[in-house]
Amino acid sequence: MKEKNIETFIACDSDYEAAKAVIFGAPFDGTTSYRPGTRFGSKAIRSESYGIETYSPYQDKDLEDIAVFDGGELDFPFGNTQRVLQMIEEYTADVLSDGKLPVMIGGEHLVTLGAVRAAAKKYPDLNIIHFDAHADLRQEYLGEELSHACVLRRCHDILGDGRIFQFGIRSGDREEFRFAANHTYMNKFNLDTLDEICDKIKDKPVYFTIDLDVLDSSVFPGTGTPEAGGMCFSELIWGIIKVGKTNVVAADINELSPPYDPSGVSTAAACKTLRELLLAVVR
Amino acid sequence: MKEKNIETFIACDSDYEAAKAVIFGAPFDGTTSYRPGTRFGSKAIRSESYGIETYSPYQDKDLEDIAVFDGGELDFPFGNTQRVLQMIEEYTADVLSDGKLPVMIGGEHLVTLGAVRAAAKKYPDLNIIHFDAHADLRQEYLGEELSHACVLRRCHDILGDGRIFQFGIRSGDREEFRFAANHTYMNKFNLDTLDEICDKIKDKPVYFTIDLDVLDSSVFPGTGTPEAGGMCFSELIWGIIKVGKTNVVAADINELSPPYDPSGVSTAAACKTLRELLLAVVR
Amino acid sequence: MKEKNIETFIACDSDYEAAKAVIFGAPFDGTTSYRPGTRFGSKAIRSESYGIETYSPYQDKDLEDIAVFDGGELDFPFGNTQRVLQMIEEYTADVLSDGKLPVMIGGEHLVTLGAVRAAAKKYPDLNIIHFDAHADLRQEYLGEELSHACVLRRCHDILGDGRIFQFGIRSGDREEFRFAANHTYMNKFNLDTLDEICDKIKDKPVYFTIDLDVLDSSVFPGTGTPEAGGMCFSELIWGIIKVGKTNVVAADINELSPPYDPSGVSTAAACKTLRELLLAVVR
Amino acid sequence: MKEKNIETFIACDSDYEAAKAVIFGAPFDGTTSYRPGTRFGSKAIRSESYGIETYSPYQDKDLEDIAVFDGGELDFPFGNTQRVLQMIEEYTADVLSDGKLPVMIGGEHLVTLGAVRAAAKKYPDLNIIHFDAHADLRQEYLGEELSHACVLRRCHDILGDGRIFQFGIRSGDREEFRFAANHTYMNKFNLDTLDEICDKIKDKPVYFTIDLDVLDSSVFPGTGTPEAGGMCFSELIWGIIKVGKTNVVAADINELSPPYDPSGVSTAAACKTLRELLLAVVR
Amino acid sequence: MKEKNIETFIACDSDYEAAKAVIFGAPFDGTTSYRPGTRFGSKAIRSESYGIETYSPYQDKDLEDIAVFDGGELDFPFGNTQRVLQMIEEYTADVLSDGKLPVMIGGEHLVTLGAVRAAAKKYPDLNIIHFDAHADLRQEYLGEELSHACVLRRCHDILGDGRIFQFGIRSGDREEFRFAANHTYMNKFNLDTLDEICDKIKDKPVYFTIDLDVLDSSVFPGTGTPEAGGMCFSELIWGIIKVGKTNVVAADINELSPPYDPSGVSTAAACKTLRELLLAVVR
Amino acid sequence: MKEKNIETFIACDSDYEAAKAVIFGAPFDGTTSYRPGTRFGSKAIRSESYGIETYSPYQDKDLEDIAVFDGGELDFPFGNTQRVLQMIEEYTADVLSDGKLPVMIGGEHLVTLGAVRAAAKKYPDLNIIHFDAHADLRQEYLGEELSHACVLRRCHDILGDGRIFQFGIRSGDREEFRFAANHTYMNKFNLDTLDEICDKIKDKPVYFTIDLDVLDSSVFPGTGTPEAGGMCFSELIWGIIKVGKTNVVAADINELSPPYDPSGVSTAAACKTLRELLLAVVR
Repeated sequence: MKEKNIETFIACDSDYEAAKAVIFGAPFDGTTSYRPGTRFGSKAIRSESYGIETYSPYQDKDLEDIAVFDGGELDFPFGNTQRVLQMIEEYTADVLSDGKLPVMIGGEHLVTLGAVRAAAKKYPDLNIIHFDAHADLRQEYLGEELSHACVLRRCHDILGDGRIFQFGIRSGDREEFRFAANHTYMNKFNLDTLDEICDKIKDKPVYFTIDLDVLDSSVFPGTGTPEAGGMCFSELIWGIIKVGKTNVVAADINELSPPYDPSGVSTAAACKTLRELLLAVVR
Repeated sequence: MKEKNIETFIACDSDYEAAKAVIFGAPFDGTTSYRPGTRFGSKAIRSESYGIETYSPYQDKDLEDIAVFDGGELDFPFGNTQRVLQMIEEYTADVLSDGKLPVMIGGEHLVTLGAVRAAAKKYPDLNIIHFDAHADLRQEYLGEELSHACVLRRCHDILGDGRIFQFGIRSGDREEFRFAANHTYMNKFNLDTLDEICDKIKDKPVYFTIDLDVLDSSVFPGTGTPEAGGMCFSELIWGIIKVGKTNVVAADINELSPPYDPSGVSTAAACKTLRELLLAVVR
Repeated sequence: MKEKNIETFIACDSDYEAAKAVIFGAPFDGTTSYRPGTRFGSKAIRSESYGIETYSPYQDKDLEDIAVFDGGELDFPFGNTQRVLQMIEEYTADVLSDGKLPVMIGGEHLVTLGAVRAAAKKYPDLNIIHFDAHADLRQEYLGEELSHACVLRRCHDILGDGRIFQFGIRSGDREEFRFAANHTYMNKFNLDTLDEICDKIKDKPVYFTIDLDVLDSSVFPGTGTPEAGGMCFSELIWGIIKVGKTNVVAADINELSPPYDPSGVSTAAACKTLRELLLAVVR
Repeated sequence: MKEKNIETFIACDSDYEAAKAVIFGAPFDGTTSYRPGTRFGSKAIRSESYGIETYSPYQDKDLEDIAVFDGGELDFPFGNTQRVLQMIEEYTADVLSDGKLPVMIGGEHLVTLGAVRAAAKKYPDLNIIHFDAHADLRQEYLGEELSHACVLRRCHDILGDGRIFQFGIRSGDREEFRFAANHTYMNKFNLDTLDEICDKIKDKPVYFTIDLDVLDSSVFPGTGTPEAGGMCFSELIWGIIKVGKTNVVAADINELSPPYDPSGVSTAAACKTLRELLLAVVR
Repeated sequence: MKEKNIETFIACDSDYEAAKAVIFGAPFDGTTSYRPGTRFGSKAIRSESYGIETYSPYQDKDLEDIAVFDGGELDFPFGNTQRVLQMIEEYTADVLSDGKLPVMIGGEHLVTLGAVRAAAKKYPDLNIIHFDAHADLRQEYLGEELSHACVLRRCHDILGDGRIFQFGIRSGDREEFRFAANHTYMNKFNLDTLDEICDKIKDKPVYFTIDLDVLDSSVFPGTGTPEAGGMCFSELIWGIIKVGKTNVVAADINELSPPYDPSGVSTAAACKTLRELLLAVVR
Repeated sequence: MKEKNIETFIACDSDYEAAKAVIFGAPFDGTTSYRPGTRFGSKAIRSESYGIETYSPYQDKDLEDIAVFDGGELDFPFGNTQRVLQMIEEYTADVLSDGKLPVMIGGEHLVTLGAVRAAAKKYPDLNIIHFDAHADLRQEYLGEELSHACVLRRCHDILGDGRIFQFGIRSGDREEFRFAANHTYMNKFNLDTLDEICDKIKDKPVYFTIDLDVLDSSVFPGTGTPEAGGMCFSELIWGIIKVGKTNVVAADINELSPPYDPSGVSTAAACKTLRELLLAVVR
C-alpha cells in the first residue's frame, strides 16, 4: 500500500508528537496595500526548499538533527481578516500549549498579530524583536486598523511601551517615527545595537518576527513593497543567530511574494533564512 | 501657467458636463481567491491605451467622435468589501442621475455588484447580459457571500429569475450549473444564442458586464483564473456590437490582472475591448 | 495530533486501496534537446490544480465522484536515463498488477517509454494513441537512442507496425514522416480521423499518451519546443472524451515546462486536461 | 587550424556564390512609437532557429535542399534613419544584381522601405503583397514621414496606385482606411481574397512583406504593437504558400520584439514562418 | 462636476505658480545603443510612486512640506533627436525663467544635454556634478555625435575644462578615460572625493545629473546597460544629500528602463531616489 | 563575395594560429539537480558581450590588445555525460598542445572535470583555485559520481590532497565540509586568505575555475542554485586580478543560466567577468 504525497519544508518531517518546533503557513495577503501575492509565500518556501542544503556552515548545525513538524497551510476564508487572525491565534495557542515552538510562515505581516495574541496570553511578559524595513506603527491605514501597515501598533496595543524592539526600519510616515520615539525601541537602517538589546532582555520570553523586506531590495526583490537601502544577507543571518540566543518562544518570517520573484532568488533566500532561524531557535 | 498632468483613456477627454458616458476605475481585488492583481487592471488599461488607435475598423467609428469623461480611479480602503461596494454604488448612481452612461473598469468581478445595485434602483426592470468563463453563481465561497465567485448570485438576489443572461460559461461547480438551469439563462462555451436573446429583451434596460476571461486564455492570459477553451477576440467584438444594439444603461469590463501579463497582450486586448464597448454603447 | 502536510492533485485524495486510478509524477527532462524544465511539470500541475474546479461542464462529471490516488513524485537520480525508465516501468507495473489505471504526469516525453514497457508486458496486444506536435520517430538523436525525440520509435520497437496511431503531428524530419508512412498511422495537423480510428481499435487495450504541445503554442506556450499551428483546447478535450470511450489501460500527459510559462496559462490548461482525462478514462 | 564561430539561420549555410537566396538582418527600431525591441528580432530568429526542423510537413520540402546564404546583421548607426535605409537599399541592390533573391529579417517595418527602393529600381513594374495588422499608410506620424507607421505610404509614393495589396489589416486611423479605399487594395482582417489577387498579378514581380503582427496576438505576443483579432498560424502558412506561387523577387519578415516574448513562442513562430517563406519563394 | 483624472508623482501636487520646483518627464530613448525602454521610465516613476512614503527617515523631511509641480510628460516626435533636445531646452528655460528649479526625469541620458543648454544660458559659470557608471565622453558613437554615450562630451563642448565632476564611473573605452584625465574631474568607481569637490565648488551654480546605473546592477537591474560593481543605495543617498548642500539650479535622474525590471525593484529605487533628490535640492 | 555571419565574444576575433588564448563554450547541463538552463550560458555570454566595453578601468587593459580566438560551441550529444567530458578533454588538450591558454565557458560546473583532466595530463603538478558558493565535494549525488555537485571531488581523485584551494564556499552538506577540512584548503564565505595562497603556490601551474554563483545572488540571480550571502562584484574582480598573477595554464567560468535572468544583469556580469579574466590571465 502506497502513501499519499507528503510535502514538507526540507527535513522538517518529524511527527507532531516528537517535534520540538512546528512550522505552518499563513497564506494571507488581504490587507496588502500595494502589490499582493504573499499568499503564495509559504507554499513557495516549502516547495523550493529542496534547492537548499539541510546543513548550515554559519552555525555548523543540520536540520536533520532537530525535530520539526510541518503542519502545512492554514485554510483561510477570503476577505475576512478577523477570522484569519482568529485561526492563526488558535493554531499558535495549540502548539504552545503542547510545549512546542511555533514558527509561522507568512503571508503578509498582519499574520503576526494572530500569533502574538496567542503568545502574549501564555507569556504576559512577552517582548517582540522585529526586523523590518517598515515601522508598521500606523494607527490606521486608509481607515482600517487591521492592516499590515499597522501590525506592530496593534501589538503595542497588547504589550504596551518598552516591549517592542525594532531593527532595520527605513520607511514609514513621520507620525510612525514619532510614535516609535516615544513608545518602542527603534534602531533605524541596521542592527547596530542588537547586541546590547539582546543582553538587556536576556531571559524574558521573546516573539521574533522577521519581515524579509528588511533585506536590501537587491537581495530580496520578491516582496510587496521592496525597499532599497537594507541589509545584506550575512547581516541578517548574524542577527538571527544573535536573537536565537535569547529565549525565543515563537517566531515568524513573512512578506515573500513569489509573483515578484521571477529569478527565484528571493524564495531561495527565504528558504535559507528559515533554515537558519530554525537552527538558531530550536533546541 | 502650466497644467497638471492629466491621464485619461485615449480620447476620453471630454469635460464631465458635456460627456455622454463616464468611465471610471474600480481597483479592487480583495476577494480574489486564486491569483490577485486585478487592482492594477484599470490603471494599466488607461496607461496602455496610447498603444491603440481611436478608430475602429470593426464599427467604422472613432472615439474622437463621442464625448466620454474619464473619472480616474475610485480611492478604496483595503480589506473592507462592504465599503468598496458602497462607493461604487454611489459613484454609479451619481452618473446615472446625471443622465450619463457609466462604464466601470475593474478590478475583480465583485465590483459589478455595486454598479448593478445602483442601476437596479434606477431601472427596476433591469436585465443583465453577462459574458464570462465562470458562472459566478455560488451561494457563498469559503464562507463569504461577497466574493467574486458569487457576484451573479448576488445580482440574482436583487433581480430574481429570468433576468440574467449568461454567455461563454465553461467553469463552475456542479451546483452553479444546476442553479443556472433553474434561475438564469445560460449559454455555455460561446455566444451561439446571443442574437435571439438580444431580440427578446429588446428595449428593456440592460446592464452589460464583461469578465474578460470569457476570452480564451491564449488571447487573455493576464487574469486571475485563466480558462482555456474560450472565445477568440473577433467573436467577442461581434458580441459587443450585438449587445450594443440593445438598450444598455450601464456596463463594465473586469478581471485584467497585469502582473500575469508579461507580454502585454492582455492589456492591449482589454484596451481594444473598451474602445469597442464605448463605440457600441455610447450614442 | 496533527497530520503532516499532504498535497495531491485536486480531489485526488483517495487511499491507494480504494482507488480506481493512480496518478504519479515523472519529473525527468534529461534528454530534452532544446529548452529544459519539464522536470518541474508534474509538481506545478499538482500545486496549481487548486485554481480549477473539480466539475467538468464538458462531461458533466466531477472528480469528487471518482476515486483517484496521487502517489506524488518518483524520486529520480540525475543523468541516468536507463534507471529512470526502469523506475517508471516498475511503478507502472505495480499499479497495473493491483488492477488500477496508471496515469503518469511528465516530465519530458521519453518517460512514456517506461510506462509503455510495463503496459505492453501486461497487455501484449497493446495499441498506442498518440497526440503530439512532433512525430518522435527518430532512430537516434545526436547519437542517443533514448531521447524524447525517439520515444515513439522505441515504442514501435516493442509493438511493431500498425499499433501506433498518431494525431496532430506537424513537426519532424523528413525521415520520420517517411517512417510513419510505412509503420504507423499518422493523421497530420489535427484529429480529423480520430473517430474512425477509435471505432476500429474498439476494445483493444490502449495506451493514451498526450504530449501537451499538440496544442497550439498560443494555448500552451510553456513547453520545451512550442509549435504554432496546433489545435485549440476544445478540440483536445473533444479528442480526450472520444479516446476515453476506448479501452484505455494506461495514460500520460507530458511536456509542461513551467519556466517557460510566465503567465501560468499553460499550467492551468494542463490541469484542466488532466481533469478531463481522468474523468474520461476512470470508470 | 580551427574555424571561427559561424552562426547562420538553420541550414542556411551556403556560400554566397552558390546561393539562390540571401537572408540578412536589419536590426533597426528607431522609429518605433510604442514598445521598442525589434532591433533584437533578427538575431533572435537566427539564434533560436535550432529549435525547429529544416523539413516542412506543410510543403514537403526541406531547407537542406535549397541554397541560402546568411549574411548576418547589417551594422547600423543609431538614430540616423536615412543612413539605415540607404544601407538596406545598397545591400538589397547588391544581392539583386547578383541574381539572387533577398530576404530581409527586421527590425521594425520601416526597413521594408529600403529594400523596396532597391527592388523598384530593378523591377519598375513591382507590386507589393503586404500582410499586416496595421495599414501603415499615414502621411506622417508625430511629424515624421520616415516612420514604421508610414512605410506603405512611402512605398506608395514610389509605386503609385493599384500596386499595393494589403491583407489582414485591422488597425489604423480613419484617414488610412480612406486612403486605402482610393489608392491600394485592402482586404481587412483576413486573406479571403488572396487567391484571386495572386491570380490577377500573375507573373508581375512581387515584393512580399510580412509584418508578423498580422498573426493574432495570442500566437505572436512578442511584437511592438500586438493586435488581437488576427489570423492563426495555419492561415498565415497557407497565405505564404499561395504568394510563393507568384513571381516573388524580394521579401521580408519583420516586427519580432524578443523583449516582449518571455515564453519564446513568438520567436519560434517567426523561425517557422521564415522557413516556410524560404521554402515557398526560393526555387 | 467631477474633475478629470490627474496623475502626479506622489505629493507633487502643487499648482505651477506656487511651486518652488517643477518635475517633468522626458520619455526619449532614440539613441540607446543596447537595450531600449527608458522611454517608459518617467511614466513608471510617476505611476509607482504611490508605493513609497512621502517622508524620508534619511533627511527627516517630507514631500508634503515642499511645493512641487508635476508637468507630466513632454510629447516628443519619434526619430528626431534634434527636435527632442530643443523641446527639453525650451521647457527647462521656461521653468528657470519663472524662478523655479527644474528636475527632469528621463528617458536616456542624452536628454540631459537639452536641460544643460538651458541652464548654461542662464548660468554661464555652470558646473556639472555627474553620477554614472559610464563616462559618456565619446566624441561620436557609431558616427553620431548626439548619442547617450556622448552626452557629457557634448556638455564639455559647452562648458569647457574643469567644470564637469564625474563620480562612480566604471565603464568606457580607453579614449574616454584619457579624455577625462585631461578635461574633466573623474572619481572612478565611487564617491570617495565628493566631499572635497562639493566644498570646492561651493556656491557656484550646479547642474546635478544622476544616471541611475551608477547603482550596482543588483540594486538597479532595470536599465539599458547594467553594470556590476557599482554603489549601494545608501551611498547614493548620502551623495545626493551632500550635493544638495551645494547650489543646485537644475537636476535630473535618468536611465530607468521598466521593461528590464520584472520585479519592480528598480522603479521603486528610482522613486525613492527622486524623493531624496527633491528633499535635498528644493528649499 | 560576402562572408558568412561570424559571431565571437567581443574583440575575440583573432585567428586560431595567432591567438594566445582560446575561448570555447561547453553548453552542458545534464547533471544539474535543481534548475536547468546553463546549456544556454556560453551562447548568451557571446551574444550579449556587445553590451560591454573592451576596455577595463580595473586593469587599464583592453581586449583589443590581446589575441584571443573564439572557437564557438562544442557540439554535445544529450544525455551522455561521459562523452561530453571526453569531448571537452580532447578540445582542451588540443589547445594546450598548441601552446595556447584554454578558457572554457560553461555550462554547469561538471564541465570543469573534462578540462582539468587535460590540464593535469600536461601539468602533473597542477593546482586548482576554485571560486564557488558550493563545495562540490560529494562522493556521489543521488547515486551518480559524475555530477556538478561532485566535480571538485572528482578533481581531487586526480590531484590528491593539498592541491585544491577553495574560496567563497557557503553551501554543502556536513560531509563535504568535513572532507574539505582534511583534504582541500577551504576559505569559507570570502577571499580573505587568497593573497597568501597565491603567494604560496607561486609559479606552480594553476587551473582557475570560477563558478559564478560565488557572487551574491543579488548580483548574479541567473544561475541554477542561487545562494545569498556571497561576494560583491568588486571583490570577485579583485580576486581574478590576484589569481591572474599566478601561473594560470587553463581557466573556466560556469553556471550562468539565462532562463533565470529576466533582467539580464547576470549575463552582463558574466561578460565582464570573462573580460577581466582574459585580461588577467592572457599575456
